[in-house]
Amino acid sequence: MSSTNEQPKNSIQADGVQPISTQTNGFTFNHTMLRVKDPKKSLAFYTGVLGMTLLERKKFPDMGFDLYFLAKLTDEERDNLPAGEDLAIYAFRQRGILELTHNYGTEDKDDFSYHDGNAEPQGFGHICFSVPDLDAAVKWFDDNNVTFKKRPEDGNMKNIAFIKDVDGYWIEIVQAGLMG
Amino acid sequence: MSSTNEQPKNSIQADGVQPISTQTNGFTFNHTMLRVKDPKKSLAFYTGVLGMTLLERKKFPDMGFDLYFLAKLTDEERDNLPAGEDLAIYAFRQRGILELTHNYGTEDKDDFSYHDGNAEPQGFGHICFSVPDLDAAVKWFDDNNVTFKKRPEDGNMKNIAFIKDVDGYWIEIVQAGLMG
Repeated sequence: MSSTNEQPKNSIQADGVQPISTQTNGFTFNHTMLRVKDPKKSLAFYTGVLGMTLLERKKFPDMGFDLYFLAKLTDEERDNLPAGEDLAIYAFRQRGILELTHNYGTEDKDDFSYHDGNAEPQGFGHICFSVPDLDAAVKWFDDNNVTFKKRPEDGNMKNIAFIKDVDGYWIEIVQAGLMG
Repeated sequence: MSSTNEQPKNSIQADGVQPISTQTNGFTFNHTMLRVKDPKKSLAFYTGVLGMTLLERKKFPDMGFDLYFLAKLTDEERDNLPAGEDLAIYAFRQRGILELTHNYGTEDKDDFSYHDGNAEPQGFGHICFSVPDLDAAVKWFDDNNVTFKKRPEDGNMKNIAFIKDVDGYWIEIVQAGLMG
């Protein structure tokens, strides 16, 4: 039986917003999937530069692709990761998972690249990481030779940076405490 | 000063994976941004059908766009939402936020649509919600006349469904407990 709850009193009102059905209890916004040309380079970037952890890899050799599931974990979460099949189930219960899809062979094609969604035709725009200290994060990205789409000092929005991952996907960088 | 920690022992090994630098402490995979044609319809879908809550709206009338930030919260989280500016800061500290961008006027253009990333040129693929009970979720989506890209019984992967949001973006639906 379905029933609904009003949206919480502190949430934002806007045209279109509906009450929350109890049928959605336990729904979790789990992951976002991006296709990547060369998983070795992407994994180096997302683990080495953004500090993520690989929680699951699913190989589909008959269909010619592999899937990689990553999360940016806290120290406590890293110390308490379950093992084996439980880790895969854990991964699908989390929020904030990044799934990378590798279609075999793209890494060997010189003229191959994926579409970032910001050139035409537009759709998807970016993913975003919030950081404790924007200036320190910018220095870290510079130290790692990361490409910037927008440095904090560029344009009107001084509290926001955009870097690019190895496929050119845009990654917004914000300091949560400055976003109030 | 930078230092690194080995990836946790239960995480997955793969070519390219790097140790985790302490410079990434506190980094949080916060949100994914999708452009939407008509925010009223998108908000109805993401709140009414997927049970999300609108945490922040940023209006940029001079630049002709608005931003909406949504999360699928637990009952406990909904009961404890901070108010005012603290809610915006809260939103940027979470994982699993969906940002919807509305460029003014698209909702009035009959022939306008966004690119889903799965037709050519490819890049972004989908977002995913995990659910406690896949069969119950499918029934809920049917009751709400949601369009399916793939029902669970279609194709080889019986544990996975794909629905489409009102712009045609693909949303994978999985039952976490079946993914081990």
